[in-house]
Amino acid sequence: MNLILLDQAEPSSAQTALCDPAQIQHIRQVLQLGVGDHLKVGQKHGNIGTAVISEMRSDQIILTDMVLTTAPPAKLDLTVILALPRPKVLRRLIMDMTAIGVRDIVLVNSYRTDKSYWQSPMLTRLDEFVHEGLQQGMDTVPPNIYLKKRFKPFVEDELSLWAQAQQAVVAHPYAATSFSDWSNRNGLPQILCIGAEGGWIEYEIELLHNNGCHSVNLGDRILRTEAAVNALCGRYF
Amino acid sequence: MNLILLDQAEPSSAQTALCDPAQIQHIRQVLQLGVGDHLKVGQKHGNIGTAVISEMRSDQIILTDMVLTTAPPAKLDLTVILALPRPKVLRRLIMDMTAIGVRDIVLVNSYRTDKSYWQSPMLTRLDEFVHEGLQQGMDTVPPNIYLKKRFKPFVEDELSLWAQAQQAVVAHPYAATSFSDWSNRNGLPQILCIGAEGGWIEYEIELLHNNGCHSVNLGDRILRTEAAVNALCGRYF
Repeated sequence: MNLILLDQAEPSSAQTALCDPAQIQHIRQVLQLGVGDHLKVGQKHGNIGTAVISEMRSDQIILTDMVLTTAPPAKLDLTVILALPRPKVLRRLIMDMTAIGVRDIVLVNSYRTDKSYWQSPMLTRLDEFVHEGLQQGMDTVPPNIYLKKRFKPFVEDELSLWAQAQQAVVAHPYAATSFSDWSNRNGLPQILCIGAEGGWIEYEIELLHNNGCHSVNLGDRILRTEAAVNALCGRYF
Repeated sequence: MNLILLDQAEPSSAQTALCDPAQIQHIRQVLQLGVGDHLKVGQKHGNIGTAVISEMRSDQIILTDMVLTTAPPAKLDLTVILALPRPKVLRRLIMDMTAIGVRDIVLVNSYRTDKSYWQSPMLTRLDEFVHEGLQQGMDTVPPNIYLKKRFKPFVEDELSLWAQAQQAVVAHPYAATSFSDWSNRNGLPQILCIGAEGGWIEYEIELLHNNGCHSVNLGDRILRTEAAVNALCGRYF
């Protein structure tokens, strides 16, 4: 939590009350701040700046003297299309992609996505993971997140249009061209398709290919989805 | 587990018995293989190839017809010097750095490293995490891992010498130069110093600087240690 994200609707107000237990605990126990101390804050969808703690109670912290004059960091020019992963890793993936500044995130079905993943309660908590990611990455603007439960219509009707205006690649261990070679020739792609554990099946690769995505490999090593996402996004900043 | 890593001492033998419950479970439940099926295997410190399952018992799988002719992937020309992180994230960090191919890993003390971390039982399990990382990254050669409980002597007596022969950088949010700009001018550094949560303190940055490390920032966003390590290592493949 590198800034405290404020949800309030009125950015003009110079005073606000924090009630989120996680934020209160972080201010008390990790930052060990008290009345009179300054704090980094950000207004959701707005600017970043500082505030002063004017009152601390166990269930509420009052902030005053808010000065929010710094614009949030720019988003990466990047859409990540990710096969819906195991619920266990979903939180960290959403947090990390938010923190690193991915602008658009599409969670899509794939052959190797277990059907039960779409029923996971974790999918109802995406806003919470985004909130964590923004506070980690010192950003205030949530990424756009889209859920696409049907792979083929998504690829044929939506991705195919995006791939006409932007460069799209799909990570595939057996592709002949490496991500680095491809990017050196064409620039960094604006759309990255990344499979879940076990990768895409041949049919999916073909469909992506026929709808404008170029296959690239990431070298001989196979990374966990989380590691692969961060390793690829790291190229963009 | 993208290959099954074999620990046996005799690479010349064409037959081996797997007894590791995790490997047996993976072959049975994830890969769903049976007698007669082929399997990707690698000899620790040796080659990668295939084997055939000749016998399956609940506590043992016998492999025959081993053909190990492919050399493991090259390591990255990279030493990561990491402030010892929370035990909870140590497993994934070691796994990911191993999978992505970091050649040398130094876990070092820092001001923000809680003293209790050095007593964690996780530190006795590094070989296990390396094993997982090799099986993930399809490698057979463990990285070298060094534990340095005293920051100052390590930096002054060891790192200072390495930094004479190799380019070293330390990730620091307030550095004037970005990692990308620095690397574009100087090439990718062979040594990366990465702090734990909360980063390095000013004294540590100064000591690293005085012993040959250049400070670079990673942009306006602050990433989790795990995400930062993968995002940086991703530049190298």
